[in-house]
Amino acid sequence: MGNPKRIVILGAGYGGLAAALRLQKKLRRGEAEVTLVNKHDYHTLTTHLHKSAAGTDHPDNARVDLKEMLNSRRTRLLKAEVQRLEPTERKVVTDRGVLRYDYLIAGLGSEPEMFGIPGLKEHALTIRSTNSVRLIRQHIRYMLAKYKTQPKRLDYLTFVVGGAGFTGTEFAGELADKMPELCRLFDVDPSLVRICSIEAGAAPLPPGMPRELVRYGMEKLTAKGVSFKLTTSIRECTPEGVRLSDGEFIPAGTVIWAAGVRGNRLLEEAGFETARGRVAVDPCLRSRQHREVFIVGDSALVLGPSGTPYPPTAQIAVQQGRYAADSLLAQLHGRRLPPFRYDHRGTVATLGRAEAIGVVGGRAVTGLLAYVLKLLADAGYLFTIGGLPLVLRKTVFRRS
Amino acid sequence: MGNPKRIVILGAGYGGLAAALRLQKKLRRGEAEVTLVNKHDYHTLTTHLHKSAAGTDHPDNARVDLKEMLNSRRTRLLKAEVQRLEPTERKVVTDRGVLRYDYLIAGLGSEPEMFGIPGLKEHALTIRSTNSVRLIRQHIRYMLAKYKTQPKRLDYLTFVVGGAGFTGTEFAGELADKMPELCRLFDVDPSLVRICSIEAGAAPLPPGMPRELVRYGMEKLTAKGVSFKLTTSIRECTPEGVRLSDGEFIPAGTVIWAAGVRGNRLLEEAGFETARGRVAVDPCLRSRQHREVFIVGDSALVLGPSGTPYPPTAQIAVQQGRYAADSLLAQLHGRRLPPFRYDHRGTVATLGRAEAIGVVGGRAVTGLLAYVLKLLADAGYLFTIGGLPLVLRKTVFRRS
Repeated sequence: MGNPKRIVILGAGYGGLAAALRLQKKLRRGEAEVTLVNKHDYHTLTTHLHKSAAGTDHPDNARVDLKEMLNSRRTRLLKAEVQRLEPTERKVVTDRGVLRYDYLIAGLGSEPEMFGIPGLKEHALTIRSTNSVRLIRQHIRYMLAKYKTQPKRLDYLTFVVGGAGFTGTEFAGELADKMPELCRLFDVDPSLVRICSIEAGAAPLPPGMPRELVRYGMEKLTAKGVSFKLTTSIRECTPEGVRLSDGEFIPAGTVIWAAGVRGNRLLEEAGFETARGRVAVDPCLRSRQHREVFIVGDSALVLGPSGTPYPPTAQIAVQQGRYAADSLLAQLHGRRLPPFRYDHRGTVATLGRAEAIGVVGGRAVTGLLAYVLKLLADAGYLFTIGGLPLVLRKTVFRRS
Repeated sequence: MGNPKRIVILGAGYGGLAAALRLQKKLRRGEAEVTLVNKHDYHTLTTHLHKSAAGTDHPDNARVDLKEMLNSRRTRLLKAEVQRLEPTERKVVTDRGVLRYDYLIAGLGSEPEMFGIPGLKEHALTIRSTNSVRLIRQHIRYMLAKYKTQPKRLDYLTFVVGGAGFTGTEFAGELADKMPELCRLFDVDPSLVRICSIEAGAAPLPPGMPRELVRYGMEKLTAKGVSFKLTTSIRECTPEGVRLSDGEFIPAGTVIWAAGVRGNRLLEEAGFETARGRVAVDPCLRSRQHREVFIVGDSALVLGPSGTPYPPTAQIAVQQGRYAADSLLAQLHGRRLPPFRYDHRGTVATLGRAEAIGVVGGRAVTGLLAYVLKLLADAGYLFTIGGLPLVLRKTVFRRS
């Protein structure tokens, strides 16, 4: 046996963390040195960020300290920002130095896709990190407070959500649930508040949701005070509001952009072949140009059995992270793994408090049942990364 | 006995509320009809607003529902905004209709004095109402959240307080106390935060504070992280910060203006003779032009024994409100009251948590003792307006 292999994992999101935990558990002593590079010293529960953004949950509940999950003797944690990948040189440049690797697992995640719409980058807010959702949370409250000192500015009470996919819809539901409390807090008449969901497609919620569930979801959200504009897109965003494709201008102090993501730009900048920032990988999740590089999560473009790419979800990222780790281990041990296959456990979208819709085990579920299933799935994930103590701390003993 | 006299009280601040409560208690049945006009349905504990602004106390703790204190059969409460006074016609125009009076007690309070400094009105925030302090509270948090998404913008972490009198100093102390908690909440390095107190005079704190107390106060505040610039004034306020009289430009995302107040403009607009908006009254607090009009509180210009005007404080306003009510009652009963005399009970300025300085009963007090004396004085005031239940609700059972 030669020198230990140098394995570098970029990003401690769903994919990167899953890979790190798998390697930590399965690598034989001395077989490899694993370095996990992450911008923050915590793992973000990205699927919970819409709650922190709306203010229905404390931002700290949407993150977990990496030190709690990683064994520092088996996995080296480097808090650094990745600046550049140089795959032909097998190295990664960070703001804390250069890392060389034999194997790379890149779980660099996604970034908002603005589609070149003027003004979005400058004036819209996005649900993508602890910092960005804290800004949204504070921005919403700031608008209510500003309205109270300028009561003619009804635009301060208008909240536009661009995109009614998973994140946009879940956020709109949470915000509608939070609004009565915020209105009490700021002495604002709740009937003056508008939450507008703008969706370019013909229906809200993720594609593939059965029609009756979509109808159910829209009814629930409309009853909470969310208004939908379908087959309508945002053409321009200004400090005063948004211009829509049908010519309407909605004066709004808050615009949340949740209408799409693209792969992390670092990958295309490094010369990987990408489509909207996502790297097309081989059936074993390896770059076709650099076989020692695995791409997992939102940055990986993997075609499903139907020939369409898998969506960028946490569930898929976790499975890819684990697969990449297993595949890497197999290579180290001279074995080969069958290609990656996504095991779809179900999809549930929450619609605010105690209300959700989804398909689990092939069956449509709604209401409290769907909501509880989602909670259980979340708890299950927390259990896999941090065991019972983490589950308890993020559920029973959560921060309020 | 003729028709009942129509008494109108404008404003339910310290002066107006004190007058209303006194009249409610002492007026004989059928003697007069009292209408108390106030913009909100609550009384604001203005001397507590600096805490709500800094975020060390919930804004709801700085207000009391007027219905809790007033007997609706004896005092008519009109929630309305005063638009115009017409003293020669003995009427008041509000957005809810016109009121005619035989006697008027005007406790219309003060408004910030900007001294014509360019940009202040547009870009600075002031501590003057529940709404304005909720805006400050949210503004501060919004700046910390913005900094986290734009970590080069250190100006977002700079807080300029214009004026180091009572309000400005107390606010700076509270903000310094709150900052560690806010920094934890937003993952901000506390060493990057600046709180700058800018004062045109040679010393901070209200005039008349003994020198050794001022020195003690400055030391305590400096230790908490407040930096003082004395004999320096703000020349201009821009969206980017403040330009000072010594030429320095401080880049700052937050500017709080607490360097002076003037009387409510409605009085000068009604033709009362005013100096900086304050009406010079006779020794019985009546307008010299209209003897049936009493002016109390911050809008009244009353000269003390030394020939200088009394400062605009809550303590004086309460005594003036009570005096105006007594004087009015005396007139109704054909008696005459000796001129108003201010009974100075002492002055205490808090410097954040458990720390204060002041002069009480002619003795200088500092530290926890001074702080406790202030709490007792506050509790005493609450007792006079709302009895023990109110004291308990605003102290032991306060909102956190």
